Amino acid sequence: MKYPKGVKPRQYRNTRKATGKKVKYGQRGMTLEKDLDVTNSYYLSISRAVIHKKPTPVQIVNVDYPSRNRAKIDEAYFKTPSTSDYNGVYKGRYIDFEAKETKNKTRFPLINIHAHQVEHMKQCHDHGGIVFLIIRFSTLEETYLMPIEKFMVHWERFLSDEKKSVSRTDIMADSHQLKEGLNPRIDYLSAVDEIYFRNGEF
Amino acid sequence: MKYPKGVKPRQYRNTRKATGKKVKYGQRGMTLEKDLDVTNSYYLSISRAVIHKKPTPVQIVNVDYPSRNRAKIDEAYFKTPSTSDYNGVYKGRYIDFEAKETKNKTRFPLINIHAHQVEHMKQCHDHGGIVFLIIRFSTLEETYLMPIEKFMVHWERFLSDEKKSVSRTDIMADSHQLKEGLNPRIDYLSAVDEIYFRNGEF
Repeated sequence: MKYPKGVKPRQYRNTRKATGKKVKYGQRGMTLEKDLDVTNSYYLSISRAVIHKKPTPVQIVNVDYPSRNRAKIDEAYFKTPSTSDYNGVYKGRYIDFEAKETKNKTRFPLINIHAHQVEHMKQCHDHGGIVFLIIRFSTLEETYLMPIEKFMVHWERFLSDEKKSVSRTDIMADSHQLKEGLNPRIDYLSAVDEIYFRNGEF
Repeated sequence: MKYPKGVKPRQYRNTRKATGKKVKYGQRGMTLEKDLDVTNSYYLSISRAVIHKKPTPVQIVNVDYPSRNRAKIDEAYFKTPSTSDYNGVYKGRYIDFEAKETKNKTRFPLINIHAHQVEHMKQCHDHGGIVFLIIRFSTLEETYLMPIEKFMVHWERFLSDEKKSVSRTDIMADSHQLKEGLNPRIDYLSAVDEIYFRNGEF
Protein backbone atom coordinates (compact mmCIF):
# COMPACT_ATOMS: atom_id res chain seq x y z
CA MET A 1 0.00 0.00 0.00
CA LYS A 2 2.98 2.34 0.12
CA TYR A 3 3.32 4.99 -2.55
CA PRO A 4 5.86 3.54 -5.01
CA LYS A 5 9.15 5.32 -5.44
CA GLY A 6 9.73 7.29 -8.59
CA VAL A 7 6.04 8.02 -8.89
CA LYS A 8 5.47 10.51 -6.17
CA PRO A 9 5.78 13.94 -7.79
CA ARG A 10 9.16 15.33 -6.88
CA GLN A 11 7.95 18.79 -6.06
CA TYR A 12 5.59 17.32 -3.49
CA ARG A 13 8.38 15.39 -1.79
CA ASN A 14 10.78 18.32 -1.91
CA THR A 15 8.39 20.77 -0.35
CA ARG A 16 7.79 18.35 2.48
CA LYS A 17 11.51 17.92 2.97
CA ALA A 18 12.26 21.63 2.83
CA THR A 19 9.64 22.88 5.25
CA GLY A 20 9.09 19.87 7.48
CA LYS A 21 5.39 20.74 7.42
CA LYS A 22 2.44 18.86 6.07
CA VAL A 23 1.83 19.68 2.44
CA LYS A 24 -1.64 20.31 1.08
CA TYR A 25 -2.24 17.87 -1.73
CA GLY A 26 -3.67 20.43 -4.15
CA GLN A 27 -0.58 22.62 -4.00
CA ARG A 28 1.71 20.25 -5.87
CA GLY A 29 3.06 21.62 -9.15
CA MET A 30 1.27 19.56 -11.76
CA THR A 31 1.49 21.84 -14.75
CA LEU A 32 1.08 19.23 -17.47
CA GLU A 33 -1.91 17.73 -15.69
CA LYS A 34 -3.52 21.15 -15.29
CA ASP A 35 -2.85 22.05 -18.91
CA LEU A 36 -4.42 18.78 -20.04
CA ASP A 37 -7.45 19.36 -17.79
CA VAL A 38 -7.99 22.77 -19.38
CA THR A 39 -7.43 21.29 -22.84
CA ASN A 40 -9.91 18.47 -22.27
CA SER A 41 -12.51 20.90 -20.90
CA TYR A 42 -12.04 23.02 -24.01
CA TYR A 43 -12.38 20.01 -26.34
CA LEU A 44 -15.56 19.05 -24.49
CA SER A 45 -16.96 22.60 -24.64
CA ILE A 46 -16.59 22.74 -28.43
CA SER A 47 -17.85 19.14 -28.78
CA ARG A 48 -14.61 17.93 -30.30
CA ALA A 49 -14.03 14.96 -27.98
CA VAL A 50 -14.99 13.51 -24.61
CA ILE A 51 -11.74 12.81 -22.78
CA HIS A 52 -11.27 12.85 -19.02
CA LYS A 53 -8.54 12.19 -16.50
CA LYS A 54 -9.36 9.25 -14.27
CA PRO A 55 -9.50 9.93 -10.53
CA THR A 56 -6.37 9.08 -8.52
CA PRO A 57 -6.81 5.50 -7.31
CA VAL A 58 -7.15 5.43 -3.55
CA GLN A 59 -7.70 2.54 -1.13
CA ILE A 60 -10.28 3.80 1.34
CA VAL A 61 -9.91 2.14 4.74
CA ASN A 62 -12.05 4.20 7.03
CA VAL A 63 -14.82 6.76 6.72
CA ASP A 64 -16.14 8.89 9.54
CA TYR A 65 -19.28 11.02 9.82
CA PRO A 66 -18.54 14.17 11.81
CA SER A 67 -21.98 15.44 10.80
CA ARG A 68 -25.06 13.98 9.19
CA ASN A 69 -24.34 14.87 5.57
CA ARG A 70 -20.59 14.95 5.48
CA ALA A 71 -18.61 11.75 5.04
CA LYS A 72 -14.97 12.27 5.92
CA ILE A 73 -12.41 9.74 4.75
CA ASP A 74 -9.89 9.66 7.56
CA GLU A 75 -7.76 6.73 6.47
CA ALA A 76 -6.82 5.99 2.87
CA TYR A 77 -3.72 5.12 0.86
CA PHE A 78 -2.54 5.72 -2.67
CA LYS A 79 -2.78 2.69 -4.93
CA THR A 80 -0.51 1.97 -7.88
CA PRO A 81 -2.54 2.82 -10.98
CA SER A 82 -3.39 -0.22 -13.10
CA THR A 83 -4.39 1.79 -16.15
CA SER A 84 -3.28 5.00 -17.80
CA ASP A 85 -4.63 8.31 -16.54
CA TYR A 86 -6.57 9.59 -19.54
CA ASN A 87 -9.15 8.02 -21.82
CA GLY A 88 -12.24 8.85 -23.81
CA VAL A 89 -13.81 8.96 -27.25
CA TYR A 90 -12.84 10.96 -30.34
CA LYS A 91 -14.46 10.57 -33.75
CA GLY A 92 -15.93 7.28 -32.57
CA ARG A 93 -12.51 5.86 -31.63
CA TYR A 94 -11.26 4.91 -28.21
CA ILE A 95 -8.45 7.24 -27.03
CA ASP A 96 -6.06 6.27 -24.23
CA PHE A 97 -2.93 8.01 -23.04
CA GLU A 98 -0.55 8.64 -20.19
CA ALA A 99 1.08 12.03 -19.58
CA LYS A 100 4.39 12.59 -17.84
CA GLU A 101 6.74 15.50 -17.45
CA THR A 102 10.41 15.68 -16.49
CA LYS A 103 12.69 18.50 -15.46
CA ASN A 104 15.58 16.69 -17.14
CA LYS A 105 16.64 18.60 -20.28
CA THR A 106 18.13 15.75 -22.30
CA ARG A 107 16.43 12.50 -21.26
CA PHE A 108 13.07 11.15 -20.18
CA PRO A 109 13.61 8.65 -17.31
CA LEU A 110 11.43 5.57 -17.78
CA ILE A 111 11.14 4.97 -14.03
CA ASN A 112 8.31 7.51 -14.31
CA ILE A 113 6.09 4.93 -16.01
CA HIS A 114 4.52 1.86 -14.34
CA ALA A 115 4.77 -1.53 -16.02
CA HIS A 116 1.03 -2.00 -15.40
CA GLN A 117 0.25 1.18 -17.27
CA VAL A 118 2.33 0.15 -20.28
CA GLU A 119 0.70 -3.29 -20.28
CA HIS A 120 -2.70 -1.60 -20.20
CA MET A 121 -1.83 0.73 -23.07
CA LYS A 122 -0.54 -2.15 -25.16
CA GLN A 123 -3.81 -4.04 -24.57
CA CYS A 124 -5.85 -0.99 -25.61
CA HIS A 125 -3.74 -0.67 -28.74
CA ASP A 126 -4.25 -4.37 -29.55
CA HIS A 127 -8.01 -3.83 -29.30
CA GLY A 128 -7.96 -1.01 -31.83
CA GLY A 129 -7.65 2.01 -29.58
CA ILE A 130 -5.59 5.11 -30.35
CA VAL A 131 -2.90 5.00 -27.67
CA PHE A 132 0.03 7.30 -26.99
CA LEU A 133 2.17 9.06 -24.39
CA ILE A 134 2.38 12.78 -23.87
CA ILE A 135 5.86 13.66 -22.64
CA ARG A 136 6.85 17.15 -21.54
CA PHE A 137 10.32 18.49 -20.91
CA SER A 138 9.06 21.10 -18.49
CA THR A 139 12.31 23.08 -18.31
CA LEU A 140 12.49 23.34 -22.10
CA GLU A 141 8.73 23.89 -22.42
CA GLU A 142 8.55 21.20 -25.10
CA THR A 143 5.73 18.66 -25.24
CA TYR A 144 5.63 15.58 -27.45
CA LEU A 145 3.10 12.93 -28.43
CA MET A 146 4.67 9.51 -28.91
CA PRO A 147 2.47 6.69 -30.33
CA ILE A 148 2.57 3.56 -28.17
CA GLU A 149 4.07 1.55 -31.06
CA LYS A 150 7.14 3.79 -31.02
CA PHE A 151 7.29 3.85 -27.26
CA MET A 152 7.27 0.04 -26.96
CA VAL A 153 10.70 -0.17 -28.64
CA HIS A 154 12.19 2.00 -25.90
CA TRP A 155 10.23 0.21 -23.20
CA GLU A 156 11.54 -3.22 -24.27
CA ARG A 157 15.08 -1.88 -23.94
CA PHE A 158 14.20 -0.57 -20.50
CA LEU A 159 12.80 -3.95 -19.43
CA SER A 160 15.95 -5.73 -20.62
CA ASP A 161 18.04 -3.28 -18.57
CA GLU A 162 19.55 -1.93 -21.75
CA LYS A 163 18.60 1.64 -20.92
CA LYS A 164 16.92 3.62 -18.19
CA SER A 165 15.65 6.55 -20.20
CA VAL A 166 14.76 7.79 -23.66
CA SER A 167 16.91 10.58 -25.02
CA ARG A 168 15.25 13.81 -26.14
CA THR A 169 16.73 13.15 -29.60
CA ASP A 170 14.92 9.79 -29.81
CA ILE A 171 11.72 11.37 -28.56
CA MET A 172 11.97 14.08 -31.22
CA ALA A 173 12.47 11.41 -33.89
CA ASP A 174 9.59 9.19 -32.75
CA SER A 175 7.03 11.82 -31.77
CA HIS A 176 4.99 14.78 -32.91
CA GLN A 177 5.79 17.98 -31.06
CA LEU A 178 2.60 19.53 -29.74
CA LYS A 179 1.65 23.13 -30.30
CA GLU A 180 0.92 25.00 -27.09
CA GLY A 181 -1.37 28.00 -26.94
CA LEU A 182 -4.29 29.51 -25.12
CA ASN A 183 -7.15 27.36 -26.40
CA PRO A 184 -6.53 24.49 -26.66
CA ARG A 185 -3.57 24.80 -24.35
CA ILE A 186 -1.96 21.59 -25.69
CA ASP A 187 -3.46 20.78 -29.06
CA TYR A 188 -2.86 17.04 -28.97
CA LEU A 189 -5.92 16.14 -31.06
CA SER A 190 -4.44 17.94 -34.07
CA ALA A 191 -1.47 15.58 -33.78
CA VAL A 192 -3.89 12.65 -33.43
CA ASP A 193 -5.59 13.82 -36.64
CA GLU A 194 -2.24 13.90 -38.44
CA ILE A 195 -1.07 10.52 -37.20
CA TYR A 196 -4.26 8.45 -37.10
CA PHE A 197 -6.79 10.18 -39.36
CA ARG A 198 -4.53 11.43 -42.14
CA ASN A 199 -6.86 10.37 -44.95
CA GLY A 200 -9.96 11.66 -43.26
CA GLU A 201 -10.73 8.21 -41.95
CA PHE A 202 -9.04 5.87 -39.55
CA MET B 1 -18.04 18.29 -0.73
CA LYS B 2 -20.72 16.39 1.15
CA TYR B 3 -21.77 13.01 -0.18
CA PRO B 4 -25.00 13.67 -2.09
CA LYS B 5 -28.22 12.16 -0.82
CA GLY B 6 -29.64 9.23 -2.69
CA VAL B 7 -26.20 8.16 -3.82
CA LYS B 8 -24.73 6.78 -0.66
CA PRO B 9 -25.23 3.02 -0.77
CA ARG B 10 -28.11 2.17 1.52
CA GLN B 11 -26.47 -0.84 3.07
CA TYR B 12 -23.55 1.33 4.11
CA ARG B 13 -25.82 3.84 5.80
CA ASN B 14 -27.95 1.22 7.47
CA THR B 15 -25.05 -0.69 8.96
CA ARG B 16 -23.78 2.52 10.47
CA LYS B 17 -27.19 3.27 11.92
CA ALA B 18 -27.71 -0.21 13.27
CA THR B 19 -24.42 -0.70 15.02
CA GLY B 20 -23.40 2.85 15.81
CA LYS B 21 -19.85 1.82 14.93
CA LYS B 22 -17.56 2.97 12.20
CA VAL B 23 -18.00 0.93 9.05
CA LYS B 24 -15.06 -0.33 7.04
CA TYR B 25 -15.46 0.97 3.50
CA GLY B 26 -14.71 -2.33 1.83
CA GLN B 27 -17.48 -4.15 3.67
CA ARG B 28 -20.35 -2.47 1.86
CA GLY B 29 -22.56 -4.79 -0.17
CA MET B 30 -21.63 -3.96 -3.73
CA THR B 31 -22.56 -7.15 -5.50
CA LEU B 32 -23.14 -5.74 -8.97
CA GLU B 33 -19.85 -3.85 -8.81
CA LYS B 34 -17.99 -6.99 -7.72
CA ASP B 35 -19.66 -9.08 -10.40
CA LEU B 36 -18.67 -6.54 -13.04
CA ASP B 37 -15.08 -6.44 -11.72
CA VAL B 38 -14.84 -10.22 -12.08
CA THR B 39 -16.48 -10.05 -15.50
CA ASN B 40 -14.09 -7.35 -16.73
CA SER B 41 -11.07 -9.27 -15.43
CA TYR B 42 -12.33 -12.32 -17.28
CA TYR B 43 -12.86 -10.38 -20.52
CA LEU B 44 -9.33 -9.00 -20.16
CA SER B 45 -7.83 -12.43 -19.45
CA ILE B 46 -9.31 -13.89 -22.65
CA SER B 47 -8.40 -10.74 -24.63
CA ARG B 48 -12.01 -9.97 -25.43
CA ALA B 49 -12.05 -6.35 -24.27
CA VAL B 50 -10.23 -3.85 -22.08
CA ILE B 51 -12.83 -2.35 -19.74
CA HIS B 52 -12.17 -1.01 -16.24
CA LYS B 53 -14.07 0.65 -13.46
CA LYS B 54 -12.80 4.14 -12.78
CA PRO B 55 -11.54 4.82 -9.25
CA THR B 56 -13.98 6.49 -6.85
CA PRO B 57 -13.40 10.25 -7.18
CA VAL B 58 -11.99 11.62 -3.95
CA GLN B 59 -10.92 15.14 -2.99
CA ILE B 60 -7.67 14.69 -1.10
CA VAL B 61 -7.12 17.46 1.44
CA ASN B 62 -4.29 16.20 3.59
CA VAL B 63 -1.58 13.57 3.40
CA ASP B 64 0.61 12.49 6.28
CA TYR B 65 3.81 10.43 6.36
CA PRO B 66 3.84 8.22 9.44
CA SER B 67 6.90 6.50 7.98
CA ARG B 68 9.30 7.11 5.15
CA ASN B 69 7.62 5.06 2.46
CA ARG B 70 4.02 5.20 3.52
CA ALA B 71 1.83 8.13 2.54
CA LYS B 72 -1.37 8.15 4.58
CA ILE B 73 -4.30 10.23 3.40
CA ASP B 74 -5.90 11.43 6.61
CA GLU B 75 -8.41 13.91 5.23
CA ALA B 76 -10.38 13.38 2.05
CA TYR B 77 -13.96 13.65 0.86
CA PHE B 78 -16.10 11.92 -1.73
CA LYS B 79 -16.69 13.94 -4.88
CA THR B 80 -19.75 13.70 -7.09
CA PRO B 81 -18.69 11.69 -10.14
CA SER B 82 -18.67 13.71 -13.36
CA THR B 83 -18.51 10.69 -15.65
CA SER B 84 -19.87 7.17 -15.62
CA ASP B 85 -18.02 4.45 -13.72
CA TYR B 86 -16.98 2.09 -16.51
CA ASN B 87 -15.27 2.59 -19.84
CA GLY B 88 -12.86 0.95 -22.22
CA VAL B 89 -12.39 -0.47 -25.68
CA TYR B 90 -14.11 -3.38 -27.42
CA LYS B 91 -13.57 -4.32 -31.07
CA GLY B 92 -12.00 -0.91 -31.61
CA ARG B 93 -15.06 0.92 -30.30
CA TYR B 94 -15.32 3.10 -27.23
CA ILE B 95 -17.52 1.51 -24.54
CA ASP B 96 -19.04 3.53 -21.70
CA PHE B 97 -21.58 2.51 -19.10
CA GLU B 98 -22.98 3.08 -15.66
CA ALA B 99 -24.16 0.23 -13.42
CA LYS B 100 -26.78 0.51 -10.69
CA GLU B 101 -28.75 -1.92 -8.61
CA THR B 102 -31.95 -1.55 -6.64
CA LYS B 103 -33.68 -3.71 -4.04
CA ASN B 104 -37.01 -2.46 -5.34
CA LYS B 105 -38.85 -5.28 -7.13
CA THR B 106 -41.03 -3.27 -9.47
CA ARG B 107 -39.28 0.04 -10.21
CA PHE B 108 -35.80 1.49 -10.73
CA PRO B 109 -35.64 4.88 -8.91
CA LEU B 110 -33.87 7.46 -11.06
CA ILE B 111 -32.53 9.33 -8.04
CA ASN B 112 -29.76 6.72 -8.22
CA ILE B 113 -28.29 8.40 -11.30
CA HIS B 114 -26.49 11.76 -11.38
CA ALA B 115 -27.40 14.35 -13.99
CA HIS B 116 -23.68 14.78 -14.71
CA GLN B 117 -23.30 11.12 -15.48
CA VAL B 118 -26.22 11.12 -17.90
CA GLU B 119 -24.86 14.24 -19.60
CA HIS B 120 -21.48 12.50 -19.93
CA MET B 121 -23.02 9.36 -21.39
CA LYS B 122 -25.03 11.37 -23.88
CA GLN B 123 -21.85 13.16 -25.00
CA CYS B 124 -20.04 9.83 -25.44
CA HIS B 125 -22.96 8.54 -27.49
CA ASP B 126 -22.92 11.67 -29.66
CA HIS B 127 -19.22 11.05 -30.36
CA GLY B 128 -19.85 7.52 -31.59
CA GLY B 129 -19.32 5.52 -28.42
CA ILE B 130 -21.35 2.47 -27.40
CA VAL B 131 -23.13 3.68 -24.27
CA PHE B 132 -25.61 1.94 -21.97
CA LEU B 133 -26.80 1.34 -18.43
CA ILE B 134 -26.62 -1.94 -16.56
CA ILE B 135 -29.53 -2.13 -14.14
CA ARG B 136 -29.95 -4.93 -11.62
CA PHE B 137 -33.01 -5.77 -9.58
CA SER B 138 -30.95 -7.42 -6.87
CA THR B 139 -33.87 -9.02 -5.04
CA LEU B 140 -35.14 -10.60 -8.26
CA GLU B 141 -31.62 -11.43 -9.47
CA GLU B 142 -32.40 -9.87 -12.84
CA THR B 143 -29.89 -7.72 -14.70
CA TYR B 144 -30.61 -5.64 -17.78
CA LEU B 145 -28.63 -3.66 -20.34
CA MET B 146 -30.46 -0.55 -21.54
CA PRO B 147 -28.94 1.43 -24.42
CA ILE B 148 -28.58 5.14 -23.61
CA GLU B 149 -30.96 6.07 -26.45
CA LYS B 150 -33.76 4.16 -24.71
CA PHE B 151 -32.78 5.46 -21.29
CA MET B 152 -32.89 9.10 -22.41
CA VAL B 153 -36.67 8.91 -22.96
CA HIS B 154 -37.20 7.94 -19.31
CA TRP B 155 -34.62 10.45 -18.13
CA GLU B 156 -36.36 13.34 -19.92
CA ARG B 157 -39.57 12.42 -18.12
CA PHE B 158 -37.66 12.36 -14.85
CA LEU B 159 -36.21 15.83 -15.53
CA SER B 160 -39.65 17.22 -16.31
CA ASP B 161 -40.93 15.79 -13.00
CA GLU B 162 -43.22 13.47 -14.90
CA LYS B 163 -41.87 10.40 -13.17
CA LYS B 164 -39.36 9.42 -10.52
CA SER B 165 -38.56 5.91 -11.63
CA VAL B 166 -38.65 3.47 -14.52
CA SER B 167 -40.94 0.50 -14.10
CA ARG B 168 -39.52 -2.99 -14.42
CA THR B 169 -41.98 -3.53 -17.29
CA ASP B 170 -40.51 -0.57 -19.20
CA ILE B 171 -36.99 -1.78 -18.48
CA MET B 172 -37.85 -5.24 -19.80
CA ALA B 173 -39.27 -3.68 -22.96
CA ASP B 174 -36.32 -1.35 -23.59
CA SER B 175 -33.42 -3.60 -22.54
CA HIS B 176 -31.64 -6.87 -23.11
CA GLN B 177 -31.69 -9.16 -20.08
CA LEU B 178 -28.17 -10.31 -19.30
CA LYS B 179 -27.22 -13.93 -18.80
CA GLU B 180 -25.49 -14.55 -15.49
CA GLY B 181 -23.08 -17.40 -14.97
CA LEU B 182 -19.69 -18.31 -13.66
CA ASN B 183 -17.45 -16.93 -16.41
CA PRO B 184 -18.28 -14.34 -17.49
CA ARG B 185 -20.42 -13.63 -14.45
CA ILE B 186 -22.52 -11.04 -16.29
CA ASP B 187 -22.13 -11.56 -20.02
CA TYR B 188 -22.87 -7.99 -21.10
CA LEU B 189 -20.62 -8.08 -24.19
CA SER B 190 -22.82 -10.76 -25.79
CA ALA B 191 -25.70 -8.31 -25.48
CA VAL B 192 -23.45 -5.57 -26.93
CA ASP B 193 -22.71 -7.89 -29.86
CA GLU B 194 -26.43 -8.43 -30.46
CA ILE B 195 -27.38 -4.78 -30.20
CA TYR B 196 -24.42 -2.99 -31.80
CA PHE B 197 -22.59 -5.54 -33.94
CA ARG B 198 -25.49 -7.58 -35.28
CA ASN B 199 -24.15 -7.70 -38.84
CA GLY B 200 -20.62 -8.49 -37.77
CA GLU B 201 -19.67 -4.85 -38.09
CA PHE B 202 -20.68 -1.69 -36.31
